[in-house]
Amino acid sequence: MGAGNPEHITVQAVNALNRASVFFVPSKGAEKSDLAALRRRIIERFVEGTDYRVVGFDNPVRDSSNESYRSGVADWHDAVEGVYEQLIVGELGEEECGAFLAWGDPSLYDSILRILEKIRCKGRLDLDYEVVPGISSVQALAAAHKIPLNRIGESIMLTTGRKLAEGFPDNADSVVVMLDGQMAFKTVDEDVEIYWGAYVGTEDEILVSGRLGDVLEEIERVRQEARARKGWIMDTYLLQKPERR
Amino acid sequence: MGAGNPEHITVQAVNALNRASVFFVPSKGAEKSDLAALRRRIIERFVEGTDYRVVGFDNPVRDSSNESYRSGVADWHDAVEGVYEQLIVGELGEEECGAFLAWGDPSLYDSILRILEKIRCKGRLDLDYEVVPGISSVQALAAAHKIPLNRIGESIMLTTGRKLAEGFPDNADSVVVMLDGQMAFKTVDEDVEIYWGAYVGTEDEILVSGRLGDVLEEIERVRQEARARKGWIMDTYLLQKPERR
Repeated sequence: MGAGNPEHITVQAVNALNRASVFFVPSKGAEKSDLAALRRRIIERFVEGTDYRVVGFDNPVRDSSNESYRSGVADWHDAVEGVYEQLIVGELGEEECGAFLAWGDPSLYDSILRILEKIRCKGRLDLDYEVVPGISSVQALAAAHKIPLNRIGESIMLTTGRKLAEGFPDNADSVVVMLDGQMAFKTVDEDVEIYWGAYVGTEDEILVSGRLGDVLEEIERVRQEARARKGWIMDTYLLQKPERR
Repeated sequence: MGAGNPEHITVQAVNALNRASVFFVPSKGAEKSDLAALRRRIIERFVEGTDYRVVGFDNPVRDSSNESYRSGVADWHDAVEGVYEQLIVGELGEEECGAFLAWGDPSLYDSILRILEKIRCKGRLDLDYEVVPGISSVQALAAAHKIPLNRIGESIMLTTGRKLAEGFPDNADSVVVMLDGQMAFKTVDEDVEIYWGAYVGTEDEILVSGRLGDVLEEIERVRQEARARKGWIMDTYLLQKPERR
């Protein structure tokens, strides 16, 4: 469903929305209420007629007290899998089609495909599904800053704040960081260029770019203000090593 | 404009197409003629009315005999810049809007943004431009294979065939390879999983996946047949290290 701008939706996605009888929409927490509203706005705008149902559900929350990140995620996925399976069994008729609306693109740091595949593999349900690609926040970020992600002929690393904190990769000039609640960019060489964005593609979009050492404090301040004001934040950024001359 | 399926186009892109008076469409070579046809199909399907012009142009070709890849690309970009500047000066009126339709997403291994920014920076033209993100072949590939690109919490490397031939990165479980005319995957550990696709998102889409050692010959054969049949090929693939248990 794109990164927050309802117009990120593709014609393929509009057609897919119109094949669904049921939309599964998570509905919990401060973040969830803004995002659920955007999901509903997309459904209302692009689905023709009113012959559909919106089914809300509570997404299980990951237990961040689990010391192992991997096992914490595994437990969480098991819980989500149970919820999704119940939704499919309880809400979809034999020949009906349901839709989960994933943020950005479902192939980037989203668990929905893994979970649906696990449900399908168990074989208890005769389940088939289709994946519709979408505009990710990474692309919305690059478009907003009007920049390519890569240096000419060079690699791009897509990673998490957790991984960046272990060090800037030595084999990529460009690093895109997602899922960074800890502002791991504060650990990076100050001569790197940063292209930062929050709520990218939405009316609340905030962009800051420049030499990291020059804009680091501004990003930190802006990020905290925005987060306090809205109750949640979604941000992502690109780091690029200074261009070789 | 997405990766080849006209329905990859976003609502944002449809609206942008409808603001343009002129579409600049490259028109040269075997590849270019199929792709130019798809560009025209997108324009005809999504632009309302007929109050626009399609201007064809010959894209300069990169001199692959230049021994330095970087300087070969630099010379090529200079030539493209000259052509684009002439198109803008010669074809666009003072307040008119023109459109370049980039394949996939303009932020991934595409030179259009770099070239427009260079033209703007020279200051000879009062030029402003907007970037509309699109579905990249990487996303279309992942959607077609119904897989996420990343392993849970792990990094993804986006790179070129040229770079992959130097070795599989030691800091990413998932590697997406673009621009690989040399089938650099033949240099990789045979236990890696490959998700390969050609003409992804189009009617000619071909997908092969499996353990690299098991499917390598099939990909090589299928790729050569398709290339001979159509006169050009566009393929991309994801490599993933075997899952840790």
